[in-house]
Amino acid sequence: MKMMIPIIIFMISCLLFSFSSSQPSMFDFCVADHTLPFGPAGYSCKNPLMVNVNDFSSSGILNAPNTDNIYKAGLSTAFVDAIPGLNGLGISLARVDVQPGGVVPLHTHPDATEVITMLRGNLTVGFISSNNTVYVKSIGTGDVFVIPRGLLHFQVNSGINLSVELSAFSSSNPNTQIVDEALFKSNLATKIITATTFINPIEVLRLKLLFKGSG
Amino acid sequence: MKMMIPIIIFMISCLLFSFSSSQPSMFDFCVADHTLPFGPAGYSCKNPLMVNVNDFSSSGILNAPNTDNIYKAGLSTAFVDAIPGLNGLGISLARVDVQPGGVVPLHTHPDATEVITMLRGNLTVGFISSNNTVYVKSIGTGDVFVIPRGLLHFQVNSGINLSVELSAFSSSNPNTQIVDEALFKSNLATKIITATTFINPIEVLRLKLLFKGSG
Amino acid sequence: MKMMIPIIIFMISCLLFSFSSSQPSMFDFCVADHTLPFGPAGYSCKNPLMVNVNDFSSSGILNAPNTDNIYKAGLSTAFVDAIPGLNGLGISLARVDVQPGGVVPLHTHPDATEVITMLRGNLTVGFISSNNTVYVKSIGTGDVFVIPRGLLHFQVNSGINLSVELSAFSSSNPNTQIVDEALFKSNLATKIITATTFINPIEVLRLKLLFKGSG
Amino acid sequence: MKMMIPIIIFMISCLLFSFSSSQPSMFDFCVADHTLPFGPAGYSCKNPLMVNVNDFSSSGILNAPNTDNIYKAGLSTAFVDAIPGLNGLGISLARVDVQPGGVVPLHTHPDATEVITMLRGNLTVGFISSNNTVYVKSIGTGDVFVIPRGLLHFQVNSGINLSVELSAFSSSNPNTQIVDEALFKSNLATKIITATTFINPIEVLRLKLLFKGSG
Amino acid sequence: MKMMIPIIIFMISCLLFSFSSSQPSMFDFCVADHTLPFGPAGYSCKNPLMVNVNDFSSSGILNAPNTDNIYKAGLSTAFVDAIPGLNGLGISLARVDVQPGGVVPLHTHPDATEVITMLRGNLTVGFISSNNTVYVKSIGTGDVFVIPRGLLHFQVNSGINLSVELSAFSSSNPNTQIVDEALFKSNLATKIITATTFINPIEVLRLKLLFKGSG
Amino acid sequence: MKMMIPIIIFMISCLLFSFSSSQPSMFDFCVADHTLPFGPAGYSCKNPLMVNVNDFSSSGILNAPNTDNIYKAGLSTAFVDAIPGLNGLGISLARVDVQPGGVVPLHTHPDATEVITMLRGNLTVGFISSNNTVYVKSIGTGDVFVIPRGLLHFQVNSGINLSVELSAFSSSNPNTQIVDEALFKSNLATKIITATTFINPIEVLRLKLLFKGSG
Repeated sequence: MKMMIPIIIFMISCLLFSFSSSQPSMFDFCVADHTLPFGPAGYSCKNPLMVNVNDFSSSGILNAPNTDNIYKAGLSTAFVDAIPGLNGLGISLARVDVQPGGVVPLHTHPDATEVITMLRGNLTVGFISSNNTVYVKSIGTGDVFVIPRGLLHFQVNSGINLSVELSAFSSSNPNTQIVDEALFKSNLATKIITATTFINPIEVLRLKLLFKGSG
Repeated sequence: MKMMIPIIIFMISCLLFSFSSSQPSMFDFCVADHTLPFGPAGYSCKNPLMVNVNDFSSSGILNAPNTDNIYKAGLSTAFVDAIPGLNGLGISLARVDVQPGGVVPLHTHPDATEVITMLRGNLTVGFISSNNTVYVKSIGTGDVFVIPRGLLHFQVNSGINLSVELSAFSSSNPNTQIVDEALFKSNLATKIITATTFINPIEVLRLKLLFKGSG
Repeated sequence: MKMMIPIIIFMISCLLFSFSSSQPSMFDFCVADHTLPFGPAGYSCKNPLMVNVNDFSSSGILNAPNTDNIYKAGLSTAFVDAIPGLNGLGISLARVDVQPGGVVPLHTHPDATEVITMLRGNLTVGFISSNNTVYVKSIGTGDVFVIPRGLLHFQVNSGINLSVELSAFSSSNPNTQIVDEALFKSNLATKIITATTFINPIEVLRLKLLFKGSG
Repeated sequence: MKMMIPIIIFMISCLLFSFSSSQPSMFDFCVADHTLPFGPAGYSCKNPLMVNVNDFSSSGILNAPNTDNIYKAGLSTAFVDAIPGLNGLGISLARVDVQPGGVVPLHTHPDATEVITMLRGNLTVGFISSNNTVYVKSIGTGDVFVIPRGLLHFQVNSGINLSVELSAFSSSNPNTQIVDEALFKSNLATKIITATTFINPIEVLRLKLLFKGSG
Repeated sequence: MKMMIPIIIFMISCLLFSFSSSQPSMFDFCVADHTLPFGPAGYSCKNPLMVNVNDFSSSGILNAPNTDNIYKAGLSTAFVDAIPGLNGLGISLARVDVQPGGVVPLHTHPDATEVITMLRGNLTVGFISSNNTVYVKSIGTGDVFVIPRGLLHFQVNSGINLSVELSAFSSSNPNTQIVDEALFKSNLATKIITATTFINPIEVLRLKLLFKGSG
Repeated sequence: MKMMIPIIIFMISCLLFSFSSSQPSMFDFCVADHTLPFGPAGYSCKNPLMVNVNDFSSSGILNAPNTDNIYKAGLSTAFVDAIPGLNGLGISLARVDVQPGGVVPLHTHPDATEVITMLRGNLTVGFISSNNTVYVKSIGTGDVFVIPRGLLHFQVNSGINLSVELSAFSSSNPNTQIVDEALFKSNLATKIITATTFINPIEVLRLKLLFKGSG
């Protein structure tokens, strides 16, 4: 509890102060302190006296991510863990690369809208609404595309060049739920998968092998 | 615009009034008026003078829904369209029945948490988190189970009796996105499905036939 | 502070990771950890590695609650203290039983809407809006009734059978303020009660005796 | 729909504009237009071109309100109907006067916190939490007192001078539910009142007579 | 961690309880505990058992603040640090005095709307919208004026009497960003100030001297 | 009101429907309809039947904006007016170009956090907190920088190459308040500017001439 003491001292405030005195900027921002508890609204705030400009910055988001995987795709993120100053502000970024023939597989962000800007190359991008309407479009450099929060979506690079997009998310820590990984990389029982997706069990087993799932 | 006049008259207010005069209850509630525009926060409000107790009520949610479908499951809903008084209040209900051997197929509610209460029978219910951990449990009459918003989940009735659950949702109009229907009942191209789910095209075509999709 | 260490290790993240690596599901949910501080948005989150399926479940909500009290009514709850996985999700449940001749006395939920589903029996249920309009209705099995947040409401069982309802609340920890208990079970001075409710002091004293209040 | 045309023209925007061109201030504020529909988030916005400084102002809040009523109390309000510029901003004001021997009777604001500043005189002010703890205090000129949203509270002037308070509310249109008026000024049946409050029927009838209720 | 024990004991809850038992008022309010971590939604809550009526009150807001400064203005605040019971409730108060010839200099509240009530004297008050429209008005005793959140605004006392206002804010801890202090009391480099404000460097240096800035 | 009819028909819902029937996706998204009223939460929603994929897309954000102005800077936006599908989703984008020797002048976004990604070149970027601490940093290609909502900030290109950034905002319609334009391009009286900023009147007049203000 010793580390609390500077915070407490810092927090001492007084009812009366003049405009010309200095006041602490308690709630201009809430830089994440990963050593303290976190709650439904995000991480606890770092002592404001310990905050510096680097808490609001990161580098490397435009470095090409590793795409050496089954999807031929990869991402570099600037979420709250990389930039603690994003805590509580409801926004973050990622670069997503897709090699020719690669995909961002069918997935959702359970609590975030995504806005894609194509920086390079071409992609077929689409989302599906809950009444099974497909909104799909081929986009190229300089196009922007919005995927409303929570909906199933995907990207396919059917071109011959690497595609590079910058995605903005309406969450400082957007989770990604990839349908295939949820089903076939987890330990979900084949029997349940077959029952709840109607995919035949042989195909389920093939996909479990591919994604290294168990169950 | 004529129908606006009673609203306007109704809205006339004065700066000064005593406690003993009557004041309109403008924002105790906002009963949905489906003939007016709707926005991100819900439907426009019905003229409060036209609101009556039936705007806050519905019957029939405990009537057995039709389960004569591929899932052997069905639901009765009490969402904002059935109960206009739910508008803007962020909560609603549904009864879900699953016949023996039936399922509620893999799906998400893009912007709602679901809390299930088992009224009758048994179910295997589960959700999957975005790091592919499966949270699955067999529940029976009187058990409550929570599915955090946006996550993939399912129910399976592997028993020999009908199961009946009452689900509460943290939205007055919770959408449901069924993965199979999004993929196989829509017009999403087989090529895209195969690329983004790794399900082989023969299985995709079989499922499209089953769900009556095109594309 | 030692218990923090696994959390911190857990939280270490990196800017660059490929789709195929495993990522922690930080904010899919925030299961309440009652040993940590709580704030305006709810309890602190349990270390996600320690979360298991039982954090999202409870049993017994359909067990008949004790109704051996002045109201001839009782409730079983599934709030965040019983189901820590409800933390931050803004929803919870309770079963409410009312014996023939019993009541749920005049009360409010200061920050939650309630949606009642009648599971058995009949009730007269009503709420009053802030312009003193009464919305009252007799409901029976299968009826749903909405009580907008913060408003005075009540249930009366004037039938001959036990009534059983399942109530959903738009809060994971809905408080209940019973007007009679606030006035007559507390230590609020009779003089203040009489002055602010206009109930005559003899009646106040009778009610204080009944509710075992002081003051 | 003709009045929409200037709005539409106003709204025409272009993707590319330089810093030196003028842009409309669409969402700096949303001044209430009482002739348009209203929704869960408040009134529709007035055409920004028609907004002027008077939409953000009112006068007279410090005029003494009429206190010639049963409570010997009165209020002057500066809510969204008096100041349309408050729409959507979640804050408003009222002056409340209580004569010697007067009260602000037991009431709640179903969706607003109240912060009282005593401008003149003395009051006994209190609120009751949902576990029946009473928080009561005598306050005088210059004292500030907070009543958390939704809780039962009251003010009593047991002094010999007029008390004047300025109350701020965390809502642009805070409703007030007075318990006595909800029960005795409405048409709520005596039988229901007696059953749900345990006040004896003779006292109920006396109070109905006093508050001019029916039922 | 020892101080946590009473909280934990306090938090023990049970699924089944009757209406007549006492329940803790966990979330009626969340009184700030400055010794615990704080997060994006505010401070951690004090153990409810330790809360008393003084946590909801302060005195002295109507004491004249010190105005012996360059602005000839001063303020007394009733923010969350003075009244811990305001935590999480999104509202607070300040008294602002301006001597004849004094000003509240050009400033913003980055995340709060301000509603001014003139208690004494006269002021010219104004705000500027983001399309450079000026909303300015001379207000006197009893006038109310709203400044929508985040916008540049100011007060000028060009009269011959002290002006006294009571300001309500839609935040329990409203920060104030004074443009002159941000530029000339900080260590921001003259070169950057000149480049980003077009104020000539001689004037910048004069103002830095006045405000005691460096850089 | 004729255009409402398809909406109404569209909205007709029924209490009971089976999983296999088609349901409309009412609240997956709320595409802005600029011909309908707008409110505090955003624009009214377009009839979902009329929505198509182009409502979620725009092109040209990566086209170089015109920088032929006093700032030698310009921006291309993808806000809700360009992409109606962003309505209600709380996120948007802009490209910002700054020529060598150019600036993005001192400004705020009254209700939005900004996250900058440098696509090309170098910038000195900074924000100032409300206690007058300066957070300033030189950033180059691939760096990300966060400016918490409402705070004064600026960008300076002191290099020899064009800088290009992509900014994400936590609002679908982020307003920009440029301090110089608010003061010197508006009709704010010189006397008020001088009084509230302490800038000498000669400098104010020079800046008014530069920014073509009046007053």
